[in-house]
Amino acid sequence: MNSLRENQCREKNKNICSFEEAGRMLEGLSVSQKTEKVLLQEAYNRVLAEDVTAKIPVPHFRKSAYDGFALKSEDVKEAEKERPAVLKIRETIGAGSLGAGPLRSGTAVKIMTGAMVPEGADTVVKHEDTCFSEETVEIFHPAAPGNIIEAGEDVSGGSPLLLAGTVLEPADLALLAGQGFAEVMVYRRPKAALLSTGSELIEPGKRLEAGKIYNTNAVLLGGYLEKYGLIPEDRGIVKDSLPILKEQLEAALSVSDLVVTTGGVSAGDYDYVQRALEEIGAEILFHRLPFKPGGAMLAAVKDGKVILGLSGNPGAAAVGLLAVGLPYLKKLCGRRVTQTETAEAVLAQPFGKASRGTRFLRGKAGYEHGKLVFESSENQRNGSVSSLQELGLLGEISAGTPPLPAGEKIKVFFV
Amino acid sequence: MNSLRENQCREKNKNICSFEEAGRMLEGLSVSQKTEKVLLQEAYNRVLAEDVTAKIPVPHFRKSAYDGFALKSEDVKEAEKERPAVLKIRETIGAGSLGAGPLRSGTAVKIMTGAMVPEGADTVVKHEDTCFSEETVEIFHPAAPGNIIEAGEDVSGGSPLLLAGTVLEPADLALLAGQGFAEVMVYRRPKAALLSTGSELIEPGKRLEAGKIYNTNAVLLGGYLEKYGLIPEDRGIVKDSLPILKEQLEAALSVSDLVVTTGGVSAGDYDYVQRALEEIGAEILFHRLPFKPGGAMLAAVKDGKVILGLSGNPGAAAVGLLAVGLPYLKKLCGRRVTQTETAEAVLAQPFGKASRGTRFLRGKAGYEHGKLVFESSENQRNGSVSSLQELGLLGEISAGTPPLPAGEKIKVFFV
Repeated sequence: MNSLRENQCREKNKNICSFEEAGRMLEGLSVSQKTEKVLLQEAYNRVLAEDVTAKIPVPHFRKSAYDGFALKSEDVKEAEKERPAVLKIRETIGAGSLGAGPLRSGTAVKIMTGAMVPEGADTVVKHEDTCFSEETVEIFHPAAPGNIIEAGEDVSGGSPLLLAGTVLEPADLALLAGQGFAEVMVYRRPKAALLSTGSELIEPGKRLEAGKIYNTNAVLLGGYLEKYGLIPEDRGIVKDSLPILKEQLEAALSVSDLVVTTGGVSAGDYDYVQRALEEIGAEILFHRLPFKPGGAMLAAVKDGKVILGLSGNPGAAAVGLLAVGLPYLKKLCGRRVTQTETAEAVLAQPFGKASRGTRFLRGKAGYEHGKLVFESSENQRNGSVSSLQELGLLGEISAGTPPLPAGEKIKVFFV
Repeated sequence: MNSLRENQCREKNKNICSFEEAGRMLEGLSVSQKTEKVLLQEAYNRVLAEDVTAKIPVPHFRKSAYDGFALKSEDVKEAEKERPAVLKIRETIGAGSLGAGPLRSGTAVKIMTGAMVPEGADTVVKHEDTCFSEETVEIFHPAAPGNIIEAGEDVSGGSPLLLAGTVLEPADLALLAGQGFAEVMVYRRPKAALLSTGSELIEPGKRLEAGKIYNTNAVLLGGYLEKYGLIPEDRGIVKDSLPILKEQLEAALSVSDLVVTTGGVSAGDYDYVQRALEEIGAEILFHRLPFKPGGAMLAAVKDGKVILGLSGNPGAAAVGLLAVGLPYLKKLCGRRVTQTETAEAVLAQPFGKASRGTRFLRGKAGYEHGKLVFESSENQRNGSVSSLQELGLLGEISAGTPPLPAGEKIKVFFV
């Protein structure tokens, strides 16, 4: 933890980190990932835990690209419609079969797509461009060398195939299969415990009482954690009580790789999260960041495990998690690329407020005439859940930005 | 099936469908979806099976947006720094607590973020803008009505909340939780059987033999099927034998909602898929479509179940599945929006070939100065697996297009 202690931002003031600094501070923490072997059929969207080098080239022999006749181009260089070259058919080579050795001048083999082209043949003429009987094939035009897929054309033997930390997409699974691997080493999905603090919360499924609200944060944040590869565990509602909160935090830490709390991180009378964390011996990394919504958040570490304390307002909690926590979540899952992809996008709607501090708008990507367009959600309130529907982009409005007309360019984060 | 029989495209010629017509023909088939109830915690990325109307407004009472003092703006309209308005603190209302009824003139309540604002109060002054003791609070400026989240601001009661066919994202789960639902009705994930035909194929994990190749298609296509919500079942390799293929097709159809085959759909001597399907009584919808790669594909229906016969070349098989089959896959999963999202993108690299027929390029999205850029994969060969890595876009090059320089605009499909 020494490098952390030396972090300038923290030394000066825990409260003045920018969202970027806070994100980097979290991402700089070391993580320990466990691995497990899974069947390729179960590895979609998992994170590869080892560098893989191609043992064999793909394809590993010269393959015919078409159904047709493999021959020597030399043998048909004077072929004409009226005076076709006539070659003797030596044999038929189906995909998966082996031919009878090198091709001799004046002969051809009937060959199927994907079958091994015999040595000596340098081209394949599609069968629809020929006339053939059982014994001979007529070729009516010269054929340039080609229609053969060379060995190693897709993957050269000995080359790096996949790097550890790759999120396995269908093609990655196929590359591994192409090397003959039936199983693959992946990182275990980390477990994330969710604690929803607030005496006003009621579990969905129970009867609503006056002044109370249903707890939406657990499934909201659980959904995002799952989206990025963690296994969320909803550990329910924690009343606004310091001893209960401490007990619940310690219990959650003991069974999880990450703990995410909501609520209790503002400056209200019942905002116990920071105090509870300090009292159980966690080190506070930062508390309160200068952006809206969601800047009322904290991060702490205990025994190498991170606790993210997010706002109790769903809109703010989601923005805090995604704007600050996402690179750490990806690192915890073992991903190689942890930075959130960014781009420049054009505002579809004006943003009418001057922004003293940094502000994130919730929205989604649209495309118009080749341009990336930021389509802002209607309700940008802290507590709004509807603003997060179809969330695809966070739009950053930097501190000190005047009201923006539609068409203005802003930086967006793909989330 | 009558509407199918009347389909003009099929009446004229099974082979002349464009990829769009073929896609629509598949998507026009009726599907029967089963439903199941799952916990919200397990519903991420599942497809909602019922329209949901908001039973209650969210929030369902007036909530304070801040920690502060709820009061009547009328009571502080003449407040000044030197002559603050002094109000008696009636009580403290924490989130989840009920106050002691309507607020009377000259009084305020100390209130927490999210707590119910008492009737009669029309504004909340943040506590950092006040001076307060146990009994009284001083307000130094007039306060406009505000800082209160009105009932129904996020979701109005009685309004449509979510439509059947919505793929449940985190915010959708939170909207359902906010209505008090602990469970939700979703469509069962359809089962898709994968049959890899071709005597040249060897299962990964076994020893490679000369002239043979590892089967990559099952995990490749299985990955895409899983990505879009189906449950893939790899039913292994089928040798090039008509009776075995027929038996395997019938077995797969009996336990699955969809069957996907690879290989055996060209015009080679061992291309048995169409014949096998006809002999088991399936109706061929189309066979061979005018695009590359992957146009060597077919679709058939038996007892309401679709069989997609894709190319044996991985690159071509993936393009065929995604360019033609995707809307049907989404419909089969119960999705409301089945069309593939398209946009206009700028070519990052030149495409040097004139295209007689329609051609799809494999690539991914990049963003430069607010523009969507199509970054083409290097190897566009039919058999290439590496071309599908990080696949995010299919770029359409229409029939009759001359070679295209970098910077040219093309239509892209998000896959």
